[in-house]
Amino acid sequence: MERLSLNQITTDNWNMREAVEGCARASIPWIALWRHKVQQAGLAESKRYVRDAGLRVSSLCRGGMFPAATKSERQARIDDNRRAVEEAAELGTDVLVLVCGPAPDRNIDDARKMVEEGIEQLVPYAVSCGVRLGIEPLHPMYAAERSVINTLSQASDIAERYAANQVGVVVDVFHVWWDPDLYRQIARANGRILGFHVSDWIVPTPDLLMGRGMMGDGVIDIRRIRKAVDSAGYTGPIEVEIFNRSIWDAPGDEVLALMKERYTQHV
Amino acid sequence: MERLSLNQITTDNWNMREAVEGCARASIPWIALWRHKVQQAGLAESKRYVRDAGLRVSSLCRGGMFPAATKSERQARIDDNRRAVEEAAELGTDVLVLVCGPAPDRNIDDARKMVEEGIEQLVPYAVSCGVRLGIEPLHPMYAAERSVINTLSQASDIAERYAANQVGVVVDVFHVWWDPDLYRQIARANGRILGFHVSDWIVPTPDLLMGRGMMGDGVIDIRRIRKAVDSAGYTGPIEVEIFNRSIWDAPGDEVLALMKERYTQHV
Repeated sequence: MERLSLNQITTDNWNMREAVEGCARASIPWIALWRHKVQQAGLAESKRYVRDAGLRVSSLCRGGMFPAATKSERQARIDDNRRAVEEAAELGTDVLVLVCGPAPDRNIDDARKMVEEGIEQLVPYAVSCGVRLGIEPLHPMYAAERSVINTLSQASDIAERYAANQVGVVVDVFHVWWDPDLYRQIARANGRILGFHVSDWIVPTPDLLMGRGMMGDGVIDIRRIRKAVDSAGYTGPIEVEIFNRSIWDAPGDEVLALMKERYTQHV
Repeated sequence: MERLSLNQITTDNWNMREAVEGCARASIPWIALWRHKVQQAGLAESKRYVRDAGLRVSSLCRGGMFPAATKSERQARIDDNRRAVEEAAELGTDVLVLVCGPAPDRNIDDARKMVEEGIEQLVPYAVSCGVRLGIEPLHPMYAAERSVINTLSQASDIAERYAANQVGVVVDVFHVWWDPDLYRQIARANGRILGFHVSDWIVPTPDLLMGRGMMGDGVIDIRRIRKAVDSAGYTGPIEVEIFNRSIWDAPGDEVLALMKERYTQHV
């Protein structure tokens, strides 16, 4: 349990204070924060809630969204990413998760170059703030709307241009479980894995975004992936990150209790 | 237009006869047939409709679905695939499209081996019937429900174990457009591409299965992919295959007219 982290999107109906207090009640030692939730609660207040509850912040979600149609728009994205870096540092986590963004047009190759350029521009500032950038490959079904970085291989190709303590990758079982190259790519990412996220792929899959399930309710061999990630040197927090309407609508304390049970059984 | 083929699922509300006659009215020279539609109309009748209308059959959808929990169940799948091969030959097409099937449990690696074994068992019979097997990689979002073969690379890894006139690959833009390795893999498949399917990826994507769009309505650079497929030596029919409720509900003749227009503009 010392690695368990609540990614606060899993209890989306809870505000910042409720999520932090819920973790404390459930003896969950880590929490992953989302920027829009931090903004709602206020940065200083969020920091105080977390500190008062004795929690640690596993990561801040999310930076990224680099591709844009114009140079000025791309610069605006960089500026926003710099603020995200500052927020991560202020909140006491050294991991900013990057969801890299979709293409502004039909040219996915160009968008991928924009991601590379955006990260290149962001790294020096992140380093100066002591924040590492975790590139999270998103499932290919999100290529058009959320990220053109869709495999662990792509994420590592970019990360490896930098020092291991500057840029790494985030492994989320929901995004990568299908990849025929998965275990080779996890081994390749040795020393560069900055986060590990769990949920499950439920069948039938009801929705592209809201179709994730609680661990054990789907088809992903989560334990095998967790062991591979462990073998690749990752000993940090394990975030439970679930977008699912029925989980969101359930009482938060019940979700956390079920999450702990399933974590023990399936992670 | 001499390469245009109506994959009959695009006009799902039409029965076999209506689809064949619709193609004839629209001067579309090819049609791709689905087994459940052939069964509804009868094999001999389907064949007669197609012949009387002067159409050619670009492919039969679908064989595959190889993985299963028990040996006897896997054998039953092989038997069904042999019937699919016979139907393809009878209908006058030499391409059976393989949708390879999902895993029966959480072991996706084993399921992928079952696909390899199933194809190995099927090839001699297909060869004896003059039917080529076209492995169609399906988008990774279908890995849990339809196919554990999710990239062109995987499909070619299997196809290359056989002669090029025995086993090949089918490229569907909807399934492969996101792949960072796409153009290299299309070039690799030179001489082995047995089919090319077009539709579009619409944003926002409304549904995993029914979310495909008409060419031009989405984000896929279809023409670039078509040119790459051409450069890899494929000169055969180009199937329009769209699962979309509003297209299904539109009058078939209108769908075919729009399809021809968009084919000219975007394919």
